[in-house]
Amino acid sequence: MSGALAIVGLGPGPVEWIAPEAQDALAAATDLVGYQPYLDRVPARTGQRRHGSDNRRELDRARDALAMAASGCRVAVVSGGDPGVFAMAAAVFEAVDDGEASWRALDITVVPGISAMQAAAARLGAPLGHDFCAISLSDNLKPWDIVARRLRAAAEGDFVIALFNPASKARPEQIHHAFALLRDHKAASTPVAFARAIGRPDERIVLTRLADADPAMADMRTLVLIGSSETRFVERPGSRPWMLTPRSYGVGR
Amino acid sequence: MSGALAIVGLGPGPVEWIAPEAQDALAAATDLVGYQPYLDRVPARTGQRRHGSDNRRELDRARDALAMAASGCRVAVVSGGDPGVFAMAAAVFEAVDDGEASWRALDITVVPGISAMQAAAARLGAPLGHDFCAISLSDNLKPWDIVARRLRAAAEGDFVIALFNPASKARPEQIHHAFALLRDHKAASTPVAFARAIGRPDERIVLTRLADADPAMADMRTLVLIGSSETRFVERPGSRPWMLTPRSYGVGR
Repeated sequence: MSGALAIVGLGPGPVEWIAPEAQDALAAATDLVGYQPYLDRVPARTGQRRHGSDNRRELDRARDALAMAASGCRVAVVSGGDPGVFAMAAAVFEAVDDGEASWRALDITVVPGISAMQAAAARLGAPLGHDFCAISLSDNLKPWDIVARRLRAAAEGDFVIALFNPASKARPEQIHHAFALLRDHKAASTPVAFARAIGRPDERIVLTRLADADPAMADMRTLVLIGSSETRFVERPGSRPWMLTPRSYGVGR
Repeated sequence: MSGALAIVGLGPGPVEWIAPEAQDALAAATDLVGYQPYLDRVPARTGQRRHGSDNRRELDRARDALAMAASGCRVAVVSGGDPGVFAMAAAVFEAVDDGEASWRALDITVVPGISAMQAAAARLGAPLGHDFCAISLSDNLKPWDIVARRLRAAAEGDFVIALFNPASKARPEQIHHAFALLRDHKAASTPVAFARAIGRPDERIVLTRLADADPAMADMRTLVLIGSSETRFVERPGSRPWMLTPRSYGVGR
């Protein structure tokens, strides 16, 4: 029996957003490893073992999964969203980089999924229709200085900005710092969206402008999108406006 | 009969990467609208009309689709990758913004898909494991000055950089300009990947370093990934290294 490890993206929640490759990888696994709330989304299968853990133990979880695969198990590391975007793929390859030499020879695959950013963009219209950047506001693993440097650079480049992990109970203040910094560098009228729990029963979207935005609206399940100078709201009758970043820049306006 | 318009992402190619929501939207449509090679990927259905067009007619195609929906058709606008990322969603909402007032009341949905960037990242390991930006090098709709400004900002922010539309027959030179600019701002040893036609039969991946990269390798079907200062190759026996951008930044190294 030869082991293997697949890092599988569940997307933001709904099964309608999980591609067949991910479903097949989940079905083929002898062992599922992941943050417990993600494991809870995967239907139980007879004979399949489950190894749930806390959200903060990503590297330990990755090592456990690699050791299981090395011992012959077919392991699926279950990740929210796209495992490649602020999720489990990096943790697994960090563990490979730092870990036992034999792990480098393992059959490891990454199964992509719909990220929270894409789900939010789909609901909003086309906010990522042009150049954008994605920044995690968590300073658990990087100094705040680099976050601030990236926010300034994103403003200087006039990118659409997607903020992941904007706030948590342990660090409620970063999103306030981020908005303060961005207000110094971007127009007050810049469109902003708070897209929370997209695809889940408690989904909530708030559209606003940079000057009016209340950063306290963001929590760990919120994706914050801040427009470029070209981003606009497209009004529609009786409904939330669409958020659009056109493909053209400063052309024909 | 009431019309509707869904903007549907086919992903990079393989049906294994198309989520059920997208399959359902394609099945429910009376009319498929899109760039002909994308339409060719969708299995024929009896009674379903197909409206193929050239790649450069995105805005005309969006208007045609909106007019069809307004006349009562259930239209699926077929897009490669994720329609929200350098694809058809922006064109449709631009057409709404500029078009007939009645189009604003239409039932329009965006169905997300796996983008070429995510497919490339999955194959490579975890190159997008930390903050990144996505830039289209096409200057068909924006001045080169803004592309250059964004490349400089992306380097200043030490983002991982994903370059979409790096080159075409009509504009082979931009990717050379982009590499020349980035070589002035980033380390010569920065990992670079050329990921071409991921998920297609002619998929090809080339890993290199910024100093050694040959920009002429990129064509319209290539996604170019350029690492941050933290991005590294993780060697493995008998196979291409993994490309990893760790979640930590300047911590514990």
